[in-house]
Amino acid sequence: MEVIKRFGVSIEENLLLKFDEFIRNKNYKNRSEAIRDLIREKFVSDEWEESDKNAAGAVIMVYDHHTRELMDKIINIQHDYENIIISSQHIHMDHHNCMEIIILKGRIKIMFELQAKLKAIKGVKHSILAKSTLAENM
Amino acid sequence: MEVIKRFGVSIEENLLLKFDEFIRNKNYKNRSEAIRDLIREKFVSDEWEESDKNAAGAVIMVYDHHTRELMDKIINIQHDYENIIISSQHIHMDHHNCMEIIILKGRIKIMFELQAKLKAIKGVKHSILAKSTLAENM
Amino acid sequence: MEVIKRFGVSIEENLLLKFDEFIRNKNYKNRSEAIRDLIREKFVSDEWEESDKNAAGAVIMVYDHHTRELMDKIINIQHDYENIIISSQHIHMDHHNCMEIIILKGRIKIMFELQAKLKAIKGVKHSILAKSTLAENM
Amino acid sequence: MEVIKRFGVSIEENLLLKFDEFIRNKNYKNRSEAIRDLIREKFVSDEWEESDKNAAGAVIMVYDHHTRELMDKIINIQHDYENIIISSQHIHMDHHNCMEIIILKGRIKIMFELQAKLKAIKGVKHSILAKSTLAENM
Repeated sequence: MEVIKRFGVSIEENLLLKFDEFIRNKNYKNRSEAIRDLIREKFVSDEWEESDKNAAGAVIMVYDHHTRELMDKIINIQHDYENIIISSQHIHMDHHNCMEIIILKGRIKIMFELQAKLKAIKGVKHSILAKSTLAENM
Repeated sequence: MEVIKRFGVSIEENLLLKFDEFIRNKNYKNRSEAIRDLIREKFVSDEWEESDKNAAGAVIMVYDHHTRELMDKIINIQHDYENIIISSQHIHMDHHNCMEIIILKGRIKIMFELQAKLKAIKGVKHSILAKSTLAENM
Repeated sequence: MEVIKRFGVSIEENLLLKFDEFIRNKNYKNRSEAIRDLIREKFVSDEWEESDKNAAGAVIMVYDHHTRELMDKIINIQHDYENIIISSQHIHMDHHNCMEIIILKGRIKIMFELQAKLKAIKGVKHSILAKSTLAENM
Repeated sequence: MEVIKRFGVSIEENLLLKFDEFIRNKNYKNRSEAIRDLIREKFVSDEWEESDKNAAGAVIMVYDHHTRELMDKIINIQHDYENIIISSQHIHMDHHNCMEIIILKGRIKIMFELQAKLKAIKGVKHSILAKSTLAENM
């Protein structure tokens, strides 16, 4: 089981009043939960600044599935990166557009490489790499 | 079938040389494909600046599934927002950590509200809202 | 003088070890200083999500001052927004390129409007709106 | 004088209609000007992904000038980085708060290092590094 530690924070009264309002607005149960979230959020954004590190993430792409050869290209590219792909999920958004979510775990620069290749396919209208975390020691 | 139009772009030679290098690096097949991507990317980032508009997106969250009552809370909150949730997918990352991806379609401010509530749950270590698009007229 | 309050944070040991490493890397003197920074940073990013709110910011733009009529257009646009402009500063970067920094205080949506107008001028190569804060009650 | 080239873009009619609306909203004079801006914007965001590259930028910081020893610390740190600092500008925002803008030209990782050191000073309430460009071959 995880050991819990405790430390004190000194803070200007005005800033604390604003922080308590923030906690209520965001539905946090207490200050500790909110502080831990701020710390972890910072760690994740720092992690993604080093492209040689490992992380978890997801490519979210929207495409017109009627585009010729698009499905083949998407599958082929995914096969080239199968060592970083955990799973993928496919959603029909409307008559033309599909959304595909590809969960990734691996080196950050390789994830960006995969995302760039998927984005460059004709018929892919949007693609982003959502930056998440393996949550090691968090 | 979609009607294709054509227009001309005048551009400084140096900038064009750099753009052609960019196209090669990113695996684009031609300039038009790259230009259309830049245009659509701009539209999506503009869409997300207006919180009353509709869009598609995904919450990606990482949590320790051993945390007491966490699973119940996640399910309960998702039920309160079932009109914007299209699907959700669950991944086991390691002994402690799970990743959950919740695909959303609806008003931007409601998506942010849902994300904030999920993030505030004890045991949720990271959560982001990935900004995608319904791709209407794109 | 500002009243200083104190509160306790409970946190997993592993997360605290990582946080202490972060504090050393970023040159913070103590945990309280780092925590206050994380809180204020969050507030500033939240402020900028509401375009009707007031904030402080700066447009940073790079342009080729040889472009015909560019200087006149920049001055004219700045005059239309003089009620939100505090000061501007001009730097010669190289033979062609100048950087101009315009400090702003006012409604967020008006700042974005100004930035868009400056960016659309022929000869302006890059322009961003840097998001800062009036630091009220911070 | 700069040589101007021309190339053609093929694009779906719907996307072009939306793009023309965007051009009007953002006050662009013509499509070429808007396209060149999108291209340059992409280049700048790509530049900042490689921390060993050179760029131009600005630290914008807000601080309470009443904080003991703060002014000395800010000056001392700036002196350690004088080879990347081009100029700095100081604004009185209200009775307590000052804004300082430090224009930088140099290696991206060194700029981030400077910003982190300034931010960690007690009394500094907010600090960001605005990402601009040397605009070489743009």
